[in-house]
Amino acid sequence: MPLLTSDARGVFMISVTPFTDDGAVDWDSLDRVVDFYFDKGADGLTILGMMGEAPKLTQSESRAIAERVIKRAGDKPVVVGVSAPGLAAIGELGRAVMDMGAAGCMVTTPGSLKTDTQIHGYFGQVAQTLGADVPIVLQDFPLATGVHISDEVLARIIDDIAQVVMLKHEDWPGLSKITRLRRAEAEGRRRISILCGNGGVFLPEEMARGADGAMTGFGFPEMLADVVRLVDSGDLDRAQDIFDAYLPLVRYEQQPGAGLAVRKYVLAKRGAIASSAARAPSAGLTPEAITEVERLLDRQTKRLQELN
Amino acid sequence: MPLLTSDARGVFMISVTPFTDDGAVDWDSLDRVVDFYFDKGADGLTILGMMGEAPKLTQSESRAIAERVIKRAGDKPVVVGVSAPGLAAIGELGRAVMDMGAAGCMVTTPGSLKTDTQIHGYFGQVAQTLGADVPIVLQDFPLATGVHISDEVLARIIDDIAQVVMLKHEDWPGLSKITRLRRAEAEGRRRISILCGNGGVFLPEEMARGADGAMTGFGFPEMLADVVRLVDSGDLDRAQDIFDAYLPLVRYEQQPGAGLAVRKYVLAKRGAIASSAARAPSAGLTPEAITEVERLLDRQTKRLQELN
Amino acid sequence: MPLLTSDARGVFMISVTPFTDDGAVDWDSLDRVVDFYFDKGADGLTILGMMGEAPKLTQSESRAIAERVIKRAGDKPVVVGVSAPGLAAIGELGRAVMDMGAAGCMVTTPGSLKTDTQIHGYFGQVAQTLGADVPIVLQDFPLATGVHISDEVLARIIDDIAQVVMLKHEDWPGLSKITRLRRAEAEGRRRISILCGNGGVFLPEEMARGADGAMTGFGFPEMLADVVRLVDSGDLDRAQDIFDAYLPLVRYEQQPGAGLAVRKYVLAKRGAIASSAARAPSAGLTPEAITEVERLLDRQTKRLQELN
Amino acid sequence: MPLLTSDARGVFMISVTPFTDDGAVDWDSLDRVVDFYFDKGADGLTILGMMGEAPKLTQSESRAIAERVIKRAGDKPVVVGVSAPGLAAIGELGRAVMDMGAAGCMVTTPGSLKTDTQIHGYFGQVAQTLGADVPIVLQDFPLATGVHISDEVLARIIDDIAQVVMLKHEDWPGLSKITRLRRAEAEGRRRISILCGNGGVFLPEEMARGADGAMTGFGFPEMLADVVRLVDSGDLDRAQDIFDAYLPLVRYEQQPGAGLAVRKYVLAKRGAIASSAARAPSAGLTPEAITEVERLLDRQTKRLQELN
Repeated sequence: MPLLTSDARGVFMISVTPFTDDGAVDWDSLDRVVDFYFDKGADGLTILGMMGEAPKLTQSESRAIAERVIKRAGDKPVVVGVSAPGLAAIGELGRAVMDMGAAGCMVTTPGSLKTDTQIHGYFGQVAQTLGADVPIVLQDFPLATGVHISDEVLARIIDDIAQVVMLKHEDWPGLSKITRLRRAEAEGRRRISILCGNGGVFLPEEMARGADGAMTGFGFPEMLADVVRLVDSGDLDRAQDIFDAYLPLVRYEQQPGAGLAVRKYVLAKRGAIASSAARAPSAGLTPEAITEVERLLDRQTKRLQELN
Repeated sequence: MPLLTSDARGVFMISVTPFTDDGAVDWDSLDRVVDFYFDKGADGLTILGMMGEAPKLTQSESRAIAERVIKRAGDKPVVVGVSAPGLAAIGELGRAVMDMGAAGCMVTTPGSLKTDTQIHGYFGQVAQTLGADVPIVLQDFPLATGVHISDEVLARIIDDIAQVVMLKHEDWPGLSKITRLRRAEAEGRRRISILCGNGGVFLPEEMARGADGAMTGFGFPEMLADVVRLVDSGDLDRAQDIFDAYLPLVRYEQQPGAGLAVRKYVLAKRGAIASSAARAPSAGLTPEAITEVERLLDRQTKRLQELN
Repeated sequence: MPLLTSDARGVFMISVTPFTDDGAVDWDSLDRVVDFYFDKGADGLTILGMMGEAPKLTQSESRAIAERVIKRAGDKPVVVGVSAPGLAAIGELGRAVMDMGAAGCMVTTPGSLKTDTQIHGYFGQVAQTLGADVPIVLQDFPLATGVHISDEVLARIIDDIAQVVMLKHEDWPGLSKITRLRRAEAEGRRRISILCGNGGVFLPEEMARGADGAMTGFGFPEMLADVVRLVDSGDLDRAQDIFDAYLPLVRYEQQPGAGLAVRKYVLAKRGAIASSAARAPSAGLTPEAITEVERLLDRQTKRLQELN
Repeated sequence: MPLLTSDARGVFMISVTPFTDDGAVDWDSLDRVVDFYFDKGADGLTILGMMGEAPKLTQSESRAIAERVIKRAGDKPVVVGVSAPGLAAIGELGRAVMDMGAAGCMVTTPGSLKTDTQIHGYFGQVAQTLGADVPIVLQDFPLATGVHISDEVLARIIDDIAQVVMLKHEDWPGLSKITRLRRAEAEGRRRISILCGNGGVFLPEEMARGADGAMTGFGFPEMLADVVRLVDSGDLDRAQDIFDAYLPLVRYEQQPGAGLAVRKYVLAKRGAIASSAARAPSAGLTPEAITEVERLLDRQTKRLQELN
């Protein structure tokens, strides 16, 4: 499998981890959802991320899932989240998944990083630990990590650590950050790929600002793929029409915690996984929430029909 | 002016504070925006909240603004945010605005509260400090305060502190909290009014779950008023149609920090205030953001025309 | 090895993890420091805690260290820290170390717990995951975890989860918490063992309030053992004399981050481990700090001689 | 009264705010404690700081206290804490106290500052708001504010904002920060005064590293004055002997929250204030705590007698 580069574009879906109703990893559904993502237009996958319930897996499960997904994805790129409390664990998992054929490793900022110097230093240590041949995706997600990465520290990381090839962008608000990054590149800084997260809730604007695509989860990968393709082809209005049709559900999936349950419910309903079960500790959807989701799905279907 | 009760319903707009371009309070625009909110369907106002740039005001400005707005609002209820680091300041401001004719005082949780017992004890102290005749709006906003109010502690507050008559609900995700509150009331607990915040981004679902209305800011108060009225009249589909037309802008205004600049831009464009200036420290809208907002406004206008 | 019970008393040393200068686990030093702790008066050990650099270990290293220490400790109890982001990993490590002969598992509160109900629920899930026969040490360390455990929630945990047999107490300030716990027990609540952390900096007062001993790290385990023994025998003044002699160093070791480097420096100087190296990311002692520590050690030696 | 300069040295006591038992400001005791601090060796005072219960005061009380203390202090310098959520309030209070004769204004970092650039920008705005003639004390207290000021950002502030003349240093651990600051000054950077906080718990080491004195609270100001004087005169051993005698109480006062109650208890016992009452919300000392404090005071007296 080819390694991730700073020219990467398109939609990388953050894959869910399917479980059976009694909490075991559902390997058949894992294969199925991988196929589903690619059938619906994904260009790559990202696994073992926060929304993939990675912290609820044992280490042996994490490795087995990585191995299975990378194999199933064939020649499509798979990014693996390797964030861990210590460098030794990051190195151990990172080297293992690269040997399996991963396209790169995604790393976020531990909450213990307090200053710009510490953030810069941390990614230097991570790069050294993983080895210079491993492409790194820097996950910038202050709402979840509590760590804010300024333009200045991002510039220093890009300048000093060549193997950081991609920014998983989910600062919020973060539109200006994209504009400033692209402007700096126009003035000579090394280019990196920018894929956007946050459930795609700002995707049309992010693409218009210069992002290369999306790296996030959503029950309808085809929306993300369509929006990215249409903005790339210059049809921002059509992109926004599609986006708006899905926006009520995108918004509903944005609820922290509850969002994952909605996403799994939608994927199960669409046949991509057998069960919407999440592993404990986790709350399923209440009957009231199911009513709301079904209503949003009905309206979404009608709206999409009007668009065609 | 009548005091706030637990039967309060409808839309309370979180008012912006208008400034001139050189940072002074713009008193004419303050009158104008008060009139604007009521013209567009607001049932009441809330001032000196976080989004009203209250922390950027001097104490004498805060009092003068409260006096002006309460007078201008006439017989419409005005809730005043009185959160402060200490009880003495809360009591001082609270009693002052009640003497001016405020309908009630809104108080949120200081970040120093760490346990359920401390949260419960704090509102007891606030109630005692303000005096038993002052209606209290409890602002539940964990994303901003870092304090999470569980069902249990909310129940204890409702049981023990009769003057807490309203919940400003902006827990996120918080739909289930509304359902559980209403269910407990059906089983005998004292009723309180629930007005929802978060820019109205879940308003249709919140109303369907039993909320009494909205207490939030948005450049188009008529959307909030329409949604509340339509859900109350049983027409959830029409409510959601209206809501969906505004949702792309609602979403755009949800950006922390940047959201206020968008809101003031829209209000200035609509003639409700003279200038979109926010008081320092504050960033205005970049040219890119103005392009995005104008595009969303154009699309919104068209979508609303299609609905009528 | 016997399991931990709620009658446990004495000093459980939080063991350092010795490394060679190039960052490998130093197995010989691990044996040596285990012997050292017991020679100096420890009644038990606690491993894989935060101060033991557990997050910097790979999972295979963690298990190998647990196995080696448990074996070396012979019939002395070894508590193993099994905190992890998810229940599956806690269960996997917890069952493995119990099979090796651990006396119990120590678990702290993940930062995601926001309310009393969530804290109580979490320990219920942990207990179920580990199995009812596994004694649990509840680590109450708000400064590090950001989670505050109130008297009320602690009472609910003690009432509902019989296998929670010990509180590792490092709330700060926490003296009143000990008093209130013991008072509740006098009125009929189930007793639990209370061992105190925070480097022992309040140990004389904690023992006088009813604690059963210490569970913490320090370069001079004999101080902790002497203080616990002397307070138990009623000689509070002599206990405080000993304590005061070591207090300047105890205080110096209290510096977050730097404290571990001091502790390892002292242990290496005393021959308990071969090298004071900590695993990256970590800062060693600067020359200025070494001068300060050496000065404190000199003064400590003189002060102890005066006491004898 | 002369303005604060970067050559300031000695002990600035963080003054308590005395209250009567029913919660009113005790103006007679305020005079008395000011005299007490200077009698016991203080070189200056700092008022309206966090430990002075400033957040519990109304704005009119804050101003009246500042006026009274500045007048009573005569030609001794008084620094006034003016931290507030917004620049307008900082400017209003700052200019008012400078007009009363304050020596300078102390400002800390609001928790909303997330990056180095934001921290640097904030102090630039504060400086501009206060006016170029107002000396600023930068309070660096990450444990309380959650904001960490790196060497780099501190250097940028010192380089760019000439009116920042003093660092109130309570980073923890922060010994190396002093060393690095002084080293940079030796290499040409502008000198600033460094006064240390944290209850003086590292004062001997801080002085030896190049600090200019202490700015903190403690029931025995004479200890701080003696340690500063003795280290300045080169007698580090005698300084540490004095320090060690008080250290058990210094440590006991370090308990967050409870520490203030201990300090007021000691000051009331010494006759410096009439009542140890703190203003609500606040917990007084329990009988067990009083027993512990009295015991520490007895032992401290004996130890000091042995030293003389």
